[in-house]
Amino acid sequence: MVIVIQCTDQVGLVAKISGLLAEKKFNIVSMHEYVDNGENLFFMRLEVVNEPGSELLGQQLRDLLPAGALVKVNPNPEKKAIVLVTKEYHCLADILVRNHFKTLGASVQCVIGNYTHLEDITKRFDIPFYHVPFGDPATNPEKQMLDIISGYEHDYLVLAKFMRVLSPDFVGHFPNQIVNIHHSFLPAFAGANPYRQAYERGVKLIGATAHFVTNDLDEGPIIAQQIISADHSLTAAGMVKAGKEIETAVLAKALRVVFDDRVFIYKNKTVVLE
Amino acid sequence: MVIVIQCTDQVGLVAKISGLLAEKKFNIVSMHEYVDNGENLFFMRLEVVNEPGSELLGQQLRDLLPAGALVKVNPNPEKKAIVLVTKEYHCLADILVRNHFKTLGASVQCVIGNYTHLEDITKRFDIPFYHVPFGDPATNPEKQMLDIISGYEHDYLVLAKFMRVLSPDFVGHFPNQIVNIHHSFLPAFAGANPYRQAYERGVKLIGATAHFVTNDLDEGPIIAQQIISADHSLTAAGMVKAGKEIETAVLAKALRVVFDDRVFIYKNKTVVLE
Amino acid sequence: MVIVIQCTDQVGLVAKISGLLAEKKFNIVSMHEYVDNGENLFFMRLEVVNEPGSELLGQQLRDLLPAGALVKVNPNPEKKAIVLVTKEYHCLADILVRNHFKTLGASVQCVIGNYTHLEDITKRFDIPFYHVPFGDPATNPEKQMLDIISGYEHDYLVLAKFMRVLSPDFVGHFPNQIVNIHHSFLPAFAGANPYRQAYERGVKLIGATAHFVTNDLDEGPIIAQQIISADHSLTAAGMVKAGKEIETAVLAKALRVVFDDRVFIYKNKTVVLE
Amino acid sequence: MVIVIQCTDQVGLVAKISGLLAEKKFNIVSMHEYVDNGENLFFMRLEVVNEPGSELLGQQLRDLLPAGALVKVNPNPEKKAIVLVTKEYHCLADILVRNHFKTLGASVQCVIGNYTHLEDITKRFDIPFYHVPFGDPATNPEKQMLDIISGYEHDYLVLAKFMRVLSPDFVGHFPNQIVNIHHSFLPAFAGANPYRQAYERGVKLIGATAHFVTNDLDEGPIIAQQIISADHSLTAAGMVKAGKEIETAVLAKALRVVFDDRVFIYKNKTVVLE
Repeated sequence: MVIVIQCTDQVGLVAKISGLLAEKKFNIVSMHEYVDNGENLFFMRLEVVNEPGSELLGQQLRDLLPAGALVKVNPNPEKKAIVLVTKEYHCLADILVRNHFKTLGASVQCVIGNYTHLEDITKRFDIPFYHVPFGDPATNPEKQMLDIISGYEHDYLVLAKFMRVLSPDFVGHFPNQIVNIHHSFLPAFAGANPYRQAYERGVKLIGATAHFVTNDLDEGPIIAQQIISADHSLTAAGMVKAGKEIETAVLAKALRVVFDDRVFIYKNKTVVLE
Repeated sequence: MVIVIQCTDQVGLVAKISGLLAEKKFNIVSMHEYVDNGENLFFMRLEVVNEPGSELLGQQLRDLLPAGALVKVNPNPEKKAIVLVTKEYHCLADILVRNHFKTLGASVQCVIGNYTHLEDITKRFDIPFYHVPFGDPATNPEKQMLDIISGYEHDYLVLAKFMRVLSPDFVGHFPNQIVNIHHSFLPAFAGANPYRQAYERGVKLIGATAHFVTNDLDEGPIIAQQIISADHSLTAAGMVKAGKEIETAVLAKALRVVFDDRVFIYKNKTVVLE
Repeated sequence: MVIVIQCTDQVGLVAKISGLLAEKKFNIVSMHEYVDNGENLFFMRLEVVNEPGSELLGQQLRDLLPAGALVKVNPNPEKKAIVLVTKEYHCLADILVRNHFKTLGASVQCVIGNYTHLEDITKRFDIPFYHVPFGDPATNPEKQMLDIISGYEHDYLVLAKFMRVLSPDFVGHFPNQIVNIHHSFLPAFAGANPYRQAYERGVKLIGATAHFVTNDLDEGPIIAQQIISADHSLTAAGMVKAGKEIETAVLAKALRVVFDDRVFIYKNKTVVLE
Repeated sequence: MVIVIQCTDQVGLVAKISGLLAEKKFNIVSMHEYVDNGENLFFMRLEVVNEPGSELLGQQLRDLLPAGALVKVNPNPEKKAIVLVTKEYHCLADILVRNHFKTLGASVQCVIGNYTHLEDITKRFDIPFYHVPFGDPATNPEKQMLDIISGYEHDYLVLAKFMRVLSPDFVGHFPNQIVNIHHSFLPAFAGANPYRQAYERGVKLIGATAHFVTNDLDEGPIIAQQIISADHSLTAAGMVKAGKEIETAVLAKALRVVFDDRVFIYKNKTVVLE
């Protein structure tokens, strides 16, 4: 059972929380905490053995903690996810494989594509695929997507190389629930065609960034980033190809910590407790 | 003020410790703990604001904890270090520069060399240098070194590319107090001439390992390791040159965490709480 | 069209080779060469535009080069591969996905497993799967595999977490044609259970190594290696899990350069011209 | 002896160059070439054994190559460098140590600081230090620096954490001769206070960039970049501290390739032939 806590910091918080858990006979398997001293904020993630009485634990913790504390007691940690894609297969295939072998940390409900390129690979893994073309605004594609999504349980939307910008209205339905992979080391090369930008600038590293989506394009809280070397011999096309490897790895890493309740959000940043 | 604790694990340890500190009005600046569930061992490092009453705190903690607990309350964390060298300058120079600018986390008391090659650079930083040649066993060089060392305060000996094997008797004087840098990714290529071994084997990465010295050559607890790429074009001599960069970085990293009381030793392994 | 050359080094080789190609009007797209001065060996990989007359080029080059030169002129670089597996899916799934989307650089002919665990995922990609159990030596499983393999074109066998040691007789059929992924940073932790060994030793990095298979277990020429950090909190099981990511990446990297004719073998080492 | 060539690409260039060298009996120790096909540019770096007749070689090569070819025949590759600093010691100390032990690849002529903080460390290595305060424009500090510099041989100026922006006029005296270390992964966080910017943005990696200085601030050709991980627990001050390690390493790497005649500049990018 996973417990996550985010609240104003106070002297003695760890003693209070661990005291309550000891009193209620919950055995702590792991505990990670972090205090942002500048912001006076306290973050904690606990794994405890699930015991009778756990349904009361959330309220008991809230009673103990400073006003406004966020407390989630999550006895069943497997998440439900919906994946949005365009044409590129690499991130989606990685997600489908992990989902198939139950190592994703979430259960993929369906895949929505604005093209049909990835319908075949999706169906090979017995996952429903929906085609929602974005060419004609009159068809209201975002409304179509909302309708599809509402038919499934969903904790998170994953933009696995979904190459359309979503409207504030759409994003507003899923606060802190949309994870995107951007193919650059943000904040460098936000926006379109980051590899072309990187190539023109002559950088010696290329990167990828997984982040939560907000209404500021490519400006949401960063979850994970990684880079690979890029010497002069990489063309813009070569960067695209090399970049796919790092995009896949960074998105996988971000999803692992998000689905495992290790990511806290505040002030457009994340705390990742591993 | 740094507090380090290592003891048998028990339910409620964190609550007890943080409860005592709250009761005694010590403000916790940072707290890191780790439990090795397989070994049932508990490790904790705390930084607290130093307050009146801290001299009693060690005993108060011991009274609270399981029998046999190791507790160190360290109100003055700057360590004293003595550096042993042979001919290669790169690790020593890095240590001398950090020492000079007070960013080493320890104060270098003196340097002992079995050659005189590094006397000049040492003296440029106003640090005493002692030459103890190892050529003639009749001169008992280890006894000479022990005499020199006994004239200085010393928490740690640092073997900064000291290319002689020390006897069990010598090592026995400094349990868990000698840090060595070995120029390979241990346990690969232990012993002499690791770069030659690496070259012959055709590895694609070369590494360096900082570890505590025990009486099993190159087998002591590992503190830090790192690697760099090594393609086919690196000769054995090229590996030596490239390796110096990584040796310097790994030793610096290890010394930072050792001098900062972040390293715990058990079962020939280390826990590093950062 | 790819041309690879491996021969004794001589003054003027590059001039001779590029002179011949210029004379025959082959346009050089890329050229990589390497000289091992210690061994006096010359290695070259060229990409040239395929032109009429290319069928004569191999002999023309051999006439020009020192006696015993290896010259391959490869007008159709796509390789044929057969994959051997046991139970773990991660490397195989990555290969099947790349094969499906034509980005592997080779065409997977079939998969052979000593268990049936990976039959389903293989068939989802329309690739034949053969089950050859190794439990009973009387069934001569290696002979069964040789029979299956002989039914397909094959340039390489890929051991994608195939957990059986192959006999010298079997290996002898495929000199420099078998690529294995070993789950450690060789030569550290050769043999069985490398993660358990790494855990016991307390290393701070774990690695993976892709290498050609010879009759010395885990001692063949290394193609690619990579590592990830491993702090004290990783259990042996955690190392296995984290290791899968790096195994997949290292094998993918090795296959890319092998299938692309970039790897030369000599003295139990590789030269990789990228 | 190092030969560097940069010119329009043509079929047969390598054959021509290596043919000339073979004819003149120069033995080629190493040869690296690169062709930017998009720009139709050819780059080559050769190391050859110095022989009688080398003084004619530059002109002989130019006669052979397309019009406008840049050819440098450099029989004595050690460069002369002048270092500009402000208050931070880490990059300067690393340069002074390497210079002292003759492993920098250049000879440091003098150090100029706009503060006196680094005078002591400089003089400990017997290198002249000049203090040129920038507080009062009426003193024309750039003119003072030009006067000092003109008193020394100099191939390169190294800005080793020199925290003033230099004027176009000053920069114009040293085209492609000024190397700067910027404490971010450019183009992210150009300008002042990059670690503060990185902290506010919540990035998960911090970087450093070594580049040639042009009149576009932080926009010159990039020579080398590298990054380190930065989790949520790094404060802006912690980023500064961690960043120093990577700044030192990246500047050292860049200087190694620059001083070794491995860096070519075109279109605001570099080709680095290693």
